[in-house]
Amino acid sequence: MSFSPLIRQLIDALRILPGVGQKTAQRMALQMLERDRSGALRLAQALTRAMEGVGYCRCCRTLSEDELCPQCSDPRRDDALLCVVEGPMDVFAVEQTGYRGRYFVLKGHLSPLDGLGPEAIGIPELEARIGQGAFAEVILATNPTVEGEATAHYIAQMLAPRGLTVSRIAHGVPLGGELELVDGGTLAHAMAGRRPMGC
Amino acid sequence: MSFSPLIRQLIDALRILPGVGQKTAQRMALQMLERDRSGALRLAQALTRAMEGVGYCRCCRTLSEDELCPQCSDPRRDDALLCVVEGPMDVFAVEQTGYRGRYFVLKGHLSPLDGLGPEAIGIPELEARIGQGAFAEVILATNPTVEGEATAHYIAQMLAPRGLTVSRIAHGVPLGGELELVDGGTLAHAMAGRRPMGC
Ligand SMILES: [Zn+2]
Ligand SMILES: [Zn+2]
Repeated sequence: MSFSPLIRQLIDALRILPGVGQKTAQRMALQMLERDRSGALRLAQALTRAMEGVGYCRCCRTLSEDELCPQCSDPRRDDALLCVVEGPMDVFAVEQTGYRGRYFVLKGHLSPLDGLGPEAIGIPELEARIGQGAFAEVILATNPTVEGEATAHYIAQMLAPRGLTVSRIAHGVPLGGELELVDGGTLAHAMAGRRPMGC
Repeated sequence: MSFSPLIRQLIDALRILPGVGQKTAQRMALQMLERDRSGALRLAQALTRAMEGVGYCRCCRTLSEDELCPQCSDPRRDDALLCVVEGPMDVFAVEQTGYRGRYFVLKGHLSPLDGLGPEAIGIPELEARIGQGAFAEVILATNPTVEGEATAHYIAQMLAPRGLTVSRIAHGVPLGGELELVDGGTLAHAMAGRRPMGC
């Protein structure tokens, strides 16, 4: 009972942030109250606007409040390349490597034990996107985990009849890791070392 | 340019949180957008309410939206004991030791080089508070830093003519550390080992 109700409610609410426990939430709450109330009010406004305004790009399915995200609406990108990733954070990671083709963002990876099949993660939308485009190569940049590999293999098999190059980022990325945690240099290496993918 | 404007603004706004850098802010923003929008909206509301509603307890000067904070409005506490701390987070830390007297919360510590003298940190209000109360002992629980020690000595000298016991928490707390980072057991030991303070 050391904090008044509004402060306790703020501390509780801050704990929805990933990696923020009770003590960190307390420090955050009190520091904002003592040192940066206008910054905290701007944060409240940014949260509200983003949660209410952000949907999904209709072309690549990444998070975006515009119908087309920055990557899809950029006319200078290479329309012959499509990079498939598991989530919006991975778009950021792949951008850091200098890649300037197009993207498709799955909703995670295949996970039969959790009931997540091809429809749940957006494979039909990926197939439609590839059908509409004129891609020469599809780069599968799902996470280098067991599930990410299985998802890449599933997509490679699905695309086999189409006669386009399907490649997988090289295993410069550490096995068992998550793409968004890999440093830019390693990921750039993995992108450069990508190889055609058999089934 | 991997994120749309509302997402970029949210990432920027999250960086006002202590300890949150660019990459952590990105993860926070995307995770909230993908997994917990209602939690994020509750956070926005809690931020707004706290920043607009929380002021200072008129008695102990801790952060509180009520005129009297939970510690000052609790009739079961020991009115003969006053514990002086540097900030609201320290009230929480001292509460963990089982202390159930009263508090006075300074605005940090004396820092002549930054132009922070007794008035800037609330020493006159502390003197007034002690004048109004019937304290037998004042426990100085400022941080065990050079500035915290100097602040404790200043207050001890000021209170010397009043004929009440002025004590300093024992140096079980590590020198050069900050009170709010000390574990509860160590701080409980330091509270128990407090000694009368000379000038
Ligand atoms: Zn897009
Ligand atoms: Zn109070």
